[in-house]
Amino acid sequence: MTLDRLVAGATVVGALDATAMAAAQAGLDRLTKPPGSLGRLEGLAVTLAGITGRTDATVARKAVVVAAADHGVAARGVSAYPPEVTAQMVANFVSGGAAICVLAHRVGASLTVINVGVASEIPAVVDASGGGGRLVRARIRPGTADMTVGPAMTRAEAEAAITVGAEVAAEVIAAGVDVLAIGEMGIGNTTAASALTAALTGSTPADVTGRGTGLDDAGLARKISAVESALGANGLASGQPGNDAIGTLAGVGGLEIAALVGVVLEAVGSRIPVVVDGFIAGTAVLVAERLAPGVAARCIAAHRSVEPGHAIVLDALGLDPLLDLDLRLGEGSGAVLAFDLLDAAVAIRDRMATFDGAGVSGPA
Amino acid sequence: MTLDRLVAGATVVGALDATAMAAAQAGLDRLTKPPGSLGRLEGLAVTLAGITGRTDATVARKAVVVAAADHGVAARGVSAYPPEVTAQMVANFVSGGAAICVLAHRVGASLTVINVGVASEIPAVVDASGGGGRLVRARIRPGTADMTVGPAMTRAEAEAAITVGAEVAAEVIAAGVDVLAIGEMGIGNTTAASALTAALTGSTPADVTGRGTGLDDAGLARKISAVESALGANGLASGQPGNDAIGTLAGVGGLEIAALVGVVLEAVGSRIPVVVDGFIAGTAVLVAERLAPGVAARCIAAHRSVEPGHAIVLDALGLDPLLDLDLRLGEGSGAVLAFDLLDAAVAIRDRMATFDGAGVSGPA
Repeated sequence: MTLDRLVAGATVVGALDATAMAAAQAGLDRLTKPPGSLGRLEGLAVTLAGITGRTDATVARKAVVVAAADHGVAARGVSAYPPEVTAQMVANFVSGGAAICVLAHRVGASLTVINVGVASEIPAVVDASGGGGRLVRARIRPGTADMTVGPAMTRAEAEAAITVGAEVAAEVIAAGVDVLAIGEMGIGNTTAASALTAALTGSTPADVTGRGTGLDDAGLARKISAVESALGANGLASGQPGNDAIGTLAGVGGLEIAALVGVVLEAVGSRIPVVVDGFIAGTAVLVAERLAPGVAARCIAAHRSVEPGHAIVLDALGLDPLLDLDLRLGEGSGAVLAFDLLDAAVAIRDRMATFDGAGVSGPA
Repeated sequence: MTLDRLVAGATVVGALDATAMAAAQAGLDRLTKPPGSLGRLEGLAVTLAGITGRTDATVARKAVVVAAADHGVAARGVSAYPPEVTAQMVANFVSGGAAICVLAHRVGASLTVINVGVASEIPAVVDASGGGGRLVRARIRPGTADMTVGPAMTRAEAEAAITVGAEVAAEVIAAGVDVLAIGEMGIGNTTAASALTAALTGSTPADVTGRGTGLDDAGLARKISAVESALGANGLASGQPGNDAIGTLAGVGGLEIAALVGVVLEAVGSRIPVVVDGFIAGTAVLVAERLAPGVAARCIAAHRSVEPGHAIVLDALGLDPLLDLDLRLGEGSGAVLAFDLLDAAVAIRDRMATFDGAGVSGPA
């Protein structure tokens, strides 16, 4: 799977299927409720038709893919947690103890975890809960380099990580899936997401940088400074949107973000709806959209994160998130919560009575 | 069950249990996630502890109670739908074809429908879907009188409707329930809810009146005028908050709203969390809060409705809704959607690993 073919595959699916969307809306308007009164649920049913080209698209088979990697910039004190937590949390994903395991298990979603660049060894664990994920070992390198002094990785490494994500997505899709959520883990990765967002949208580091997992004021100042340094060290002008998506991803991105770019491109090319978690997963869609315009319209934004950069990413993608629950965990947790709304939308579409069938009068 | 005893029962439970809430938060902070990073889900787990006094409160057994009644004011052209739709929709609730049936069935919630004042005969139907509700026939009167020319009902009728709601809630609770949602059906009832909100909060009719199920501009103007007339005809000064909750409910409320006041008081008195649907259900909590201050803190606002009066009700109650999905259907549809978030909150609380147990490092 080359990047060119992946981009071509995500591009050829084209715009949302307007005919299927109109048919879906017409179907919803026959149901015993005022037109449009189920708001975003109706919108979801219509979007689902647009992405899949089917008015009977289901979301029964759910999957979440979580990509994990470390970040050289973590050495700059940009996270409240030490870098070894990335590997520890990957182990926690496998043993079933993490939030994403609990939330995915609750809705019957399979969980696949990609080690695309965790620096330290993943502790060996046992899945005692039955809710743990499958670990794919596909490490491109042991974490990125410190982006404040040079590129986080090479272009070839970024492309290799994208390919890893695409291959894992292809496997998950081949096993049978109707809807796919994306999430991430990586101590330091809100710093990378902030730098990517600044570089790709032309926003300032201060606008796109937040407290991540819980930085204090001094930590936030260090983080903004690190984003500024990263942009400078990689020749990315602050305040001007860049054009070279892969170069930007290699310069100030992350291996897990790159892997998610691949997951998004592969899923979109397969007409599988992608449910996007928060800020970091959002930046993967931003990169994918730059590579293959139209991709974002085939993604569903699950929630609005507390991270300030997320609103900027959502605006750039033209996506309006479903939930706003003050989440800032990542892991795909918000995306998996949104699966419930997709289920509800499909149930409404398929199981409600029509005005005619139920003998209910229409508007006076 | 007299109103006095009902109010006393809802009052004696007192404030939220601060000890249980602190213990719940401490438990959440031991789990493998940054403190607070699951936002509103954590808040829900804490609120649940506060309401029930238990850190192991479950939400497994779910119920929704939908109260239905007609409104004399519907003759004033304040709804996009004709009044006979109330009875037709009650039949649809019983036969399983309505949105609330589909959404309640999806999450395993029982559905109880109270005919507390439907004007026309409920069509006889068969529940072919297996997702229909149980109908309680407890009609106080065949719809309210036209509130634009006098009281919608007598105080005795309002109190009787409250008692009906309380008795149904007591039955549902006795059958075994951990969490209870409230919803309503009644053509014309956003007009009653608008008048109640104006009268109880001192807001103007224009501020609290919206398009309901889909009024055009002329219809909206008629509806605002009807609210103004109703306040005038019932001696309720516009722009000044009233004190007599029962009198206001009788003057400009509705039988289904009154029944929901009873449901709320009974559930709160039983330490059962009440999940409140949209604008109309919200006004029932507003009345209940005036009768028994503290009740609102034991309610969970499910979503923010499109209706402009809802924001005013939520502010008055001090409640921040979980969802914002542009819903304007009623029936308890938004409340039942929020059950998923309660389930998720409890799953997180009970099933995640702790930092110690999973060998994950804390903040650096």
